[in-house]
Amino acid sequence: MAELPDKTTAFIDWYLEVVEAADLTDKRYGVKGMNIWTPYGFVARRNLDRVIVQEIEATGSKPVEFPALIAANEFAKEKEHIKGFDAEVFWVTKGGLSELDVPLVLRPTSETAMYPVFALWVRSHRDLPLNVYQIVNVFRYETKTTRPFLRVREIHFFEEHTCQAGEPEATERVRSNLGAFARMAAAYALPYLALRRPDWDKFPGAHYSVAFDIPVGGARTLQIGSVHHYRQNFSEPYGIRYETADGRQELVHQTTFGLSERLLGAIVAVHGDSKGVVFPPSIAPYEAVIVPIPESGGGEGPLAAARALYERLHEAGRRVFLDDGEERPGAKYYHWEVRGVPLRLEVGRREVASRRATAVDRLGQKSAVAFDSAPQDVTSRLEAFDRALQERAREAFRAAFAVARSLDELPKSSKVRLVSWCGREECGHRVEAALDGSLLGEPEEGLPFEVESPGPCIACGETRDARWALAGRPL
Amino acid sequence: MAELPDKTTAFIDWYLEVVEAADLTDKRYGVKGMNIWTPYGFVARRNLDRVIVQEIEATGSKPVEFPALIAANEFAKEKEHIKGFDAEVFWVTKGGLSELDVPLVLRPTSETAMYPVFALWVRSHRDLPLNVYQIVNVFRYETKTTRPFLRVREIHFFEEHTCQAGEPEATERVRSNLGAFARMAAAYALPYLALRRPDWDKFPGAHYSVAFDIPVGGARTLQIGSVHHYRQNFSEPYGIRYETADGRQELVHQTTFGLSERLLGAIVAVHGDSKGVVFPPSIAPYEAVIVPIPESGGGEGPLAAARALYERLHEAGRRVFLDDGEERPGAKYYHWEVRGVPLRLEVGRREVASRRATAVDRLGQKSAVAFDSAPQDVTSRLEAFDRALQERAREAFRAAFAVARSLDELPKSSKVRLVSWCGREECGHRVEAALDGSLLGEPEEGLPFEVESPGPCIACGETRDARWALAGRPL
Repeated sequence: MAELPDKTTAFIDWYLEVVEAADLTDKRYGVKGMNIWTPYGFVARRNLDRVIVQEIEATGSKPVEFPALIAANEFAKEKEHIKGFDAEVFWVTKGGLSELDVPLVLRPTSETAMYPVFALWVRSHRDLPLNVYQIVNVFRYETKTTRPFLRVREIHFFEEHTCQAGEPEATERVRSNLGAFARMAAAYALPYLALRRPDWDKFPGAHYSVAFDIPVGGARTLQIGSVHHYRQNFSEPYGIRYETADGRQELVHQTTFGLSERLLGAIVAVHGDSKGVVFPPSIAPYEAVIVPIPESGGGEGPLAAARALYERLHEAGRRVFLDDGEERPGAKYYHWEVRGVPLRLEVGRREVASRRATAVDRLGQKSAVAFDSAPQDVTSRLEAFDRALQERAREAFRAAFAVARSLDELPKSSKVRLVSWCGREECGHRVEAALDGSLLGEPEEGLPFEVESPGPCIACGETRDARWALAGRPL
Repeated sequence: MAELPDKTTAFIDWYLEVVEAADLTDKRYGVKGMNIWTPYGFVARRNLDRVIVQEIEATGSKPVEFPALIAANEFAKEKEHIKGFDAEVFWVTKGGLSELDVPLVLRPTSETAMYPVFALWVRSHRDLPLNVYQIVNVFRYETKTTRPFLRVREIHFFEEHTCQAGEPEATERVRSNLGAFARMAAAYALPYLALRRPDWDKFPGAHYSVAFDIPVGGARTLQIGSVHHYRQNFSEPYGIRYETADGRQELVHQTTFGLSERLLGAIVAVHGDSKGVVFPPSIAPYEAVIVPIPESGGGEGPLAAARALYERLHEAGRRVFLDDGEERPGAKYYHWEVRGVPLRLEVGRREVASRRATAVDRLGQKSAVAFDSAPQDVTSRLEAFDRALQERAREAFRAAFAVARSLDELPKSSKVRLVSWCGREECGHRVEAALDGSLLGEPEEGLPFEVESPGPCIACGETRDARWALAGRPL
C-alpha cells in the first residue's frame, strides 16, 4: 500500500503507478509496448466503446470490419500517407514455412485496406454518403517510450471512414463528427479543445485535420482524437468515383474520425487523484461497491443486509459488486478507491438498524442510500457525483491555460499557452522553437472560456490576421 | 435475381452464393482468405457474440485481451502445440525499416501468449480457479481452399482459458463449458453432437478434446467449437504453479473452450433454404422489416401507418427496419428474404383499414400484427417462428444420421454414419480409410436421438467394449 507519487509534480510517475495499482493493465507481457487488458481494464474499455458505438450509430454510421493485413502494393498508393507510416509499420513476410510473394503490413490505420473496396461499393450518387466505422486493433512500430494506453504498439482503435458527394457534404460530416465527439466527451466528463492543426502537422494525406487536445500534468497536452477532411486526396489514387444524378463521373470527398484507448488514459489522467483512479459512472466497471461491516459480536445482520442490497441493485441493472471477502473494511475501502469506483455503500450494525446504507462517493461526499429505495437513491447519488466530477474537471481545465505575450515567456509557465499568431508557418515554427513544443493550432469552434482579443503576433508583431492559437508540449 | 443453386445437391455452391447474396460478407479484398465484414454481416456477428458473452460470463468467466503478437521463443515452449501450428502461422519479421531481433507470430490461438502471464497471476490456491476469455481475431496461414466463415485466414475467435486446482476441477470446468455451449446453441437453434475426439485427432497439446459437430450438406460434418482438457501439459512447460492450503507447490490443470465465426456459417448452412438465409431471431440484424404498400391512388395512408408502426416497435426496443425505398413491394420481399429477416410486416390499404399489419414469417407462416399491440404481437410471432425453426432444425438433424453396419456400406450413404467401434486406434483408421473421412469420436453426453445398442466393431467384429462412434467427412 505504498503512497502514489505526487500527481502535480511527478505526473508521469503518478500515471504509470496508478494504472497498475488500479489493475487496469498488466505490463509484464513479453513484447515491448504491448500490454495485457486485465478484466477490470477490459470492462472499462468496453463501457468506453459502448458510448462511442451509441453516439456514432446515432449519426447513421454503420459498423464494418476490414482485415488486419494489407498488401504492400495497396499500402503504397497514396504518397504522403505512406511517407507518414513507412517507418512505423510491422511487416508480415512469412506464412508457415515459406516467404510470402507479396509482403503484408499489419494495419497502422485502415485507409489503404478500405479504399480499394470503397471504389467497388460506391457507384452512384445513391450510394452516398457512405459512413462506416470499425473498432479494431491497429499496430505501430513505435520507437518512442511506450506507456499504457497513451503510446503502445498494439492500439485499440475507433476509425470512421466516409465518402461524400462533394466538399460541402464532407465539411458537414466533419461538423457532425465534432458534435458526436462532444457528446462522447460529456459522457467521459472530459473537457477538451478542438484545434485545427497547422498545415505542417496534419495527418499524412489529409487536406486538414482537427484534433482534440486536453491539458495534462501541467504544461503538457495530450491528443485524444481527431477528425480529418481528405478532400479527394485518397479518392483519386484509389479511384473512388460515382455517377452524379445527371450522369457525370466524380471523385468522392472523404473524411475520417479516429479515437483510441488513449481516451482511457485521458480519463485516468484528468480525473485521478492522490488516492488513485476516479471513474465517471458511464465508464466505471462497477458503479458501486457494497462493503459489509461485520459486527464484533459476529452476528449475520450486516452481511445479510448487504447481500439483500446487492440483489436489489443487481436486479435493477446497476453494475454493483458485493465485497464480502475476509479483509478488513479499511483495506476494502482502499482497494476500491484506487480502482476508482464512484460509490461505496457501507452496511454495518447502525445501517441495518436504520435501513439506510452509508454512501461515500469517490470525491468523499457522504450521504445515505435507503434499502427500500436503493435503485433510485443510487441513481441520484451517481448523478450528483457525475455533476461534481464534471465541475471539478471543468475548473481544472480552465486553470490549465495562460496567455503568453512574448516568446521569452513561453518556456516559463507551467500552463498550456494561448498565443497570438499571424497564421504564417515561419512564425509558427518560431513559437515551437521557443517553447520546445508544438503549435497545436487554432480553435475550430471557438474557445470554451473567456479571453480578450488577440494582440500582435507573438513572433513577428504583425497585428493583421492575428488569431488565438494554442501551444504546448505534447506528452 | 438469379436463382440459388440447389442446397441439397450442390451444398457448397449454394453456401458460397447465399453468403454473398445475403450481404453477409464481401470477398473482394486483396488478400487471399481474408474477407470483409459488411454492416449486415457485422451486426449478425455482434448479436452472435452477445449470446456468447452473456452465457460465458454467467459461469463466472471474465473478459481479458492479450496482445496479437507472440515472441517466437514463447511460442515454441510446448512441443506438441508448436508441431501442430508451426506450418500455419504468419510471421512478423520486420518493424519499420529494420529486422526484428526476435521474430513475432500472429497468434493462431493464445495459449502461448497467456500462459507465461498466468504463471505470474496464479500464486496461491486463493487465485484459483482462474477463468478468463477473450474474443479476438486469430490468424492461420490456411493452405486449403478458403470459404467465408468456414475456413479463413483471419478468424473471429472466442477462446476461454482456465486454470484449476486439480484434475477433477478441470473436468468440472469442461462440464460447465458443455452446458454453456448447450445454452448458446439453443439461442442459435443449432442441434449438434458433442464428441470426444479420438486420441489421434485431439487438439495439439491437449489431454483430450470434445468437439461440437453438426451435419451439413448431406454426408459432410462441420466442427463448430471445442472444449479441451489440458491436464498439466501446458502448466509444466510454462511453470503455472500454486501454493496449496497446506503449503505445497502444485502445477495447475487447465482447460480451454473455443468458438469462432464458423458458428455464423453454421447458422447459414443449417437454417438457409432455396430463398436464402434464415436467421433465428436472436441473431437477426433486423428481427422484422416493415414494407408499406403504396396505394394506387397515391394516398399517404400506408406509408404513414408503416412509419407509426416502425416508431412503436423501435421505441419498444425491437430491431426493426422500415423499407420505404422506391422499389416495388415484391422486390423488397425478395431482398429481405435472401437476408433472412424473421418477420415481414406488410402495410397496405386493407391493413390501414383493419389496423392490423399482415405478418409473414421467413418460413412462410402468415398472421396479423395489430397496430395497437404491435410490440407484444411481434414478440409472440417471433417466439412462434423461433419454435418452428428449432423444430425444423431438429427434424433435419435427426434425419442426417444413419447406422452403417459394414465398412463397405460407409461410402455409399449420404448421411453421417454411426458405427460400432471397439475403441482401438487401428480399427478407427480402418473406418477412416473406408470412408475417406474421419472417425469423429464418441458422444460425450449420450446421443440426442434413439438408437439400438451397438453391435460388433465394424472393423474387427469384436463385441467387447463396442460403443457408438460417429464417422463423417469434415467439410
